[in-house]
Amino acid sequence: MRFRLLVEYDGTGYEGWQVQPGRRTIQGTLEGALERLLQRPTRVTAAGRTDAGVHAAGQVVCFDAERQLPVDIVGRALNALTPSDITVRAVDTVADDFDPRRAAVGRVYVYRVWNRDTVSPFWRRYTWSVRRPLAIEAMAAAARAVVGEHDFSSFRAAGCDAAGPVRVVRRSEIFREDDLVRYEIEANAFLRHMVRNLVGTLVEIGLGQRPAAAMRDLLAVRDRRQAGVTAPPHGLCLTEVKYGRD
Amino acid sequence: MRFRLLVEYDGTGYEGWQVQPGRRTIQGTLEGALERLLQRPTRVTAAGRTDAGVHAAGQVVCFDAERQLPVDIVGRALNALTPSDITVRAVDTVADDFDPRRAAVGRVYVYRVWNRDTVSPFWRRYTWSVRRPLAIEAMAAAARAVVGEHDFSSFRAAGCDAAGPVRVVRRSEIFREDDLVRYEIEANAFLRHMVRNLVGTLVEIGLGQRPAAAMRDLLAVRDRRQAGVTAPPHGLCLTEVKYGRD
Repeated sequence: MRFRLLVEYDGTGYEGWQVQPGRRTIQGTLEGALERLLQRPTRVTAAGRTDAGVHAAGQVVCFDAERQLPVDIVGRALNALTPSDITVRAVDTVADDFDPRRAAVGRVYVYRVWNRDTVSPFWRRYTWSVRRPLAIEAMAAAARAVVGEHDFSSFRAAGCDAAGPVRVVRRSEIFREDDLVRYEIEANAFLRHMVRNLVGTLVEIGLGQRPAAAMRDLLAVRDRRQAGVTAPPHGLCLTEVKYGRD
Repeated sequence: MRFRLLVEYDGTGYEGWQVQPGRRTIQGTLEGALERLLQRPTRVTAAGRTDAGVHAAGQVVCFDAERQLPVDIVGRALNALTPSDITVRAVDTVADDFDPRRAAVGRVYVYRVWNRDTVSPFWRRYTWSVRRPLAIEAMAAAARAVVGEHDFSSFRAAGCDAAGPVRVVRRSEIFREDDLVRYEIEANAFLRHMVRNLVGTLVEIGLGQRPAAAMRDLLAVRDRRQAGVTAPPHGLCLTEVKYGRD
């Protein structure tokens, strides 16, 4: 039977999701825990392959087990067998052909910027620290410009293996709560480094280095070289994966 | 001249505030940075000597320097010379006889409890994880009972070197924000482990192991053995030190 896990992780101590020989990865750590639990090598697949340093509050992970096991036992055992920077929040079972990546109809990412003249000891692992004050209204206007179906070539990293550059962004919002600036974006799917590239440009807009209207122009020009820097990975968190009918 | 620093720290990697030979402490780390900056051994004093694992978002620290130095340079230099888990947020100068501990007229602490069936990878360093659901209304009622001038002997750790057990609590409130339960307490001063001992009892009340009315009875009985457990240090944060006229 196929199990589905809702997983949170602090990506700080990992070289991303995907198994790489000799590296500590989320996939490798979960597969190690499952091998101990099920006493056989077990492959896991995820809705999104997060990069090194990226966090998740709502990653979805599947694996197959030959035995019927109660879902609460699976959850408790995996939490006991993984380090405290990985937490399995919920477990259920799905159809044998359920693919957590292909079945997903939406993803939500949050990117956090710490906007104060000094780094926060508490937020340093989870935020990009930007010292000069950000103009939130300009950033919010620019963020709204990416809502809808667009060609995101200007925000697509080299080496992106997606078939095409068009994505549908359903929500793209900026909020400030004291020194914390939170960017939330929901789309049907994302290109490689798309959120981090959007955030790099939004921060340049917030710093007055580009006008808010630049975002619309950058979408039209479809040229990665004209958009902003890639924001660092540790501000990014995959918060939710949406499925059609569950 | 005497300098005053407003300091934040993540206490996770430290054995508390106070210098101890061969141990990594906040005081020792700040004194090491100051010795490099001023080129001479420099002693620092704090408003509150936080225990091992306890955090601070508003610790106040003083030191003397023979030379006149611009306060912004002192702040930037100390942030460059300390690890990223210590941040100097602000620097000013005070009278030569200003004592950050004796001059303080109030302290605010926050204690955070993570109340969900699984630990949070993101909050694990800053919260006490309590898995069973807490009855917040009962905890809030019990918290209110400690407001005012009381003998806190039931919540005073052995080895407390304070002259007397009476303290004036000005505010004592419980809030829930999703899975995070936040306890805020302000008093003129605190006894050793007083906040952690109050939280231990509040959590027992929240779990239904004691009635909310128990808090008032525990104040009256003045017996540490009858109150609850000592909550772990890593949920505690010194958030503010108040001075009379500044």
